[in-house]
Amino acid sequence: MTAAPLVTAEERALVEKAMRDAVERLDPWTRRIAAYHLGWADAEGASVTGGGGKALRPALALLSARAAGAPPEAALPGAVAVELVHAFSLLHDDIMDGDRTRRHRPAAWTVFGSPAAILGGDALMTIALEVLLDAGTPAAHRAAHDLVEATRRLIAGQARDMEFESRDDVSLDECLAMAADKTGALLACSCAIGATLAGAPPALVDVLAVFGAELGVAFQLVDDLLGIWGSPETTGKPVLSDLRARKKSLPVVAALAAGTAESRRLAELYARPAPRPEDELRETARLIEAAGGRSWAETEAARRLERAEAELARGRMDDGVRAELRDIARFVTARDH
Amino acid sequence: MTAAPLVTAEERALVEKAMRDAVERLDPWTRRIAAYHLGWADAEGASVTGGGGKALRPALALLSARAAGAPPEAALPGAVAVELVHAFSLLHDDIMDGDRTRRHRPAAWTVFGSPAAILGGDALMTIALEVLLDAGTPAAHRAAHDLVEATRRLIAGQARDMEFESRDDVSLDECLAMAADKTGALLACSCAIGATLAGAPPALVDVLAVFGAELGVAFQLVDDLLGIWGSPETTGKPVLSDLRARKKSLPVVAALAAGTAESRRLAELYARPAPRPEDELRETARLIEAAGGRSWAETEAARRLERAEAELARGRMDDGVRAELRDIARFVTARDH
Repeated sequence: MTAAPLVTAEERALVEKAMRDAVERLDPWTRRIAAYHLGWADAEGASVTGGGGKALRPALALLSARAAGAPPEAALPGAVAVELVHAFSLLHDDIMDGDRTRRHRPAAWTVFGSPAAILGGDALMTIALEVLLDAGTPAAHRAAHDLVEATRRLIAGQARDMEFESRDDVSLDECLAMAADKTGALLACSCAIGATLAGAPPALVDVLAVFGAELGVAFQLVDDLLGIWGSPETTGKPVLSDLRARKKSLPVVAALAAGTAESRRLAELYARPAPRPEDELRETARLIEAAGGRSWAETEAARRLERAEAELARGRMDDGVRAELRDIARFVTARDH
Repeated sequence: MTAAPLVTAEERALVEKAMRDAVERLDPWTRRIAAYHLGWADAEGASVTGGGGKALRPALALLSARAAGAPPEAALPGAVAVELVHAFSLLHDDIMDGDRTRRHRPAAWTVFGSPAAILGGDALMTIALEVLLDAGTPAAHRAAHDLVEATRRLIAGQARDMEFESRDDVSLDECLAMAADKTGALLACSCAIGATLAGAPPALVDVLAVFGAELGVAFQLVDDLLGIWGSPETTGKPVLSDLRARKKSLPVVAALAAGTAESRRLAELYARPAPRPEDELRETARLIEAAGGRSWAETEAARRLERAEAELARGRMDDGVRAELRDIARFVTARDH
């Protein structure tokens, strides 16, 4: 997915400045890995521009404070913290999955080696919490608690995702629960953390968290669809990489669970050992579609987005902020960019 | 170092119960890795007894509460948190260093694979903080902040340690500063966290932290000595493993910095590529001793222990607790067990 103006230029600058301040806490060695991974520097440490992700989670965090009637600045430590946890998880994910490409660049572990990348991820997780705990208020304490819980769920989701790869009896419910942990938990936290930091009433914090949780599953469904049918230009990853790695992603599990002739043929292909030639991967993608995995995932993503929007409608907040949250949700779950 | 009765049987049971409760938060997959790494289970998940470390950090944390006149239970979330951070760092360390043995057993990554062990370490770090933040008090907030800072320093120390391996101009001061981060920071936190949780005056917290920081460097010096001259029965690692890995540990750096003929010969050996035959490793150990690295490390460890004890003498605490802290410090820096 390409970068998009999810926040205003001022807000982007605000977040980036705070992110850079946070990374300054690191020793020079892990800082270099962090700067590369965050898209600020090349492998030699020279500054580069235009890198980095789309800052979805910080954008949601800032809006979350505004939903509570507070200025976006109230969410800043939270915005930085959720983005750093996200960066930590991507850094370790790439090592664990052996993914060599991230955002159109060589993954950090291929540049600095796995040991350095493990340590770089550890360092990012640490400063995420330090930024929040530095604020020192009871609200920041609650936010840190929520973030740690979300991080634990994120890790649990990744663990289950990895476990699924060696199992052939993964149910769709299990797979949806995995996505809720792996992607939903941190998005829920991102959507609520600004309100928490602004001292919003629990009812509003809950609405925002449910919105984020549903959005997270929708987002994962779309990400899984792109992992099979997305172009490398869009995803920043090699074509068909999820199928090459035999990921039990949501469309795949839906197709396997459909009980059709295509499901059985798909199961056979998934049981074959590596290496996987490209024409076999293309046949795999066709079978997933024929068994209904693609349309199920598209429908389920739309349903989750609807539920997210319905939850948003229940919350007491400024209508302009509500519309911005809705627009972000629609933007990041659209599949045409 | 063998397990030792650093805390009473009741206190050990208290800590272990709280540790097990903390690990229960994990998903089954990372929980299995944690249980193996912590010495509670074998590779298949069956319970084993007699495993685990010496629980030095929890013992210090409990004493730290007692130093503040509070019952040891006041330190419990802190005792669990520092031990979990320690466990996280060992788990990731073994992957990064390629160490195949930990506490006389195969290291977790050799049993479950590196991806699972990375995730297992991440999970341990997360629940360490969750346990502390769950307490929900301002004192717990401060303790969590201190622990996160100590963890950041621990990571920075490990990063520098790794960087040293590719440099031939490491100074003794740099190396001592690295040890203060890698080992001193978490020991300082362990020695102070119980007092922090008990709401002790800052002056006492500071005394305990300085005691722990000095003890940490002494401990690292002894660990480095054992890494060269310790027996595998004592260290739980293969003989001469630090030299095989070309670690720039403190005795090595002291020997290299001595400027003698042996220093130069040692530098030549350290520049040779792997593999390193056993007789070369034994010659390396002899050269480190001949260049004065061994006696310097022994003297420096004794000096740090003295400084730790002097700091302890300044603190206002019960004399019995002071004696227990001193005895632990002496015990873990003795080299004959």
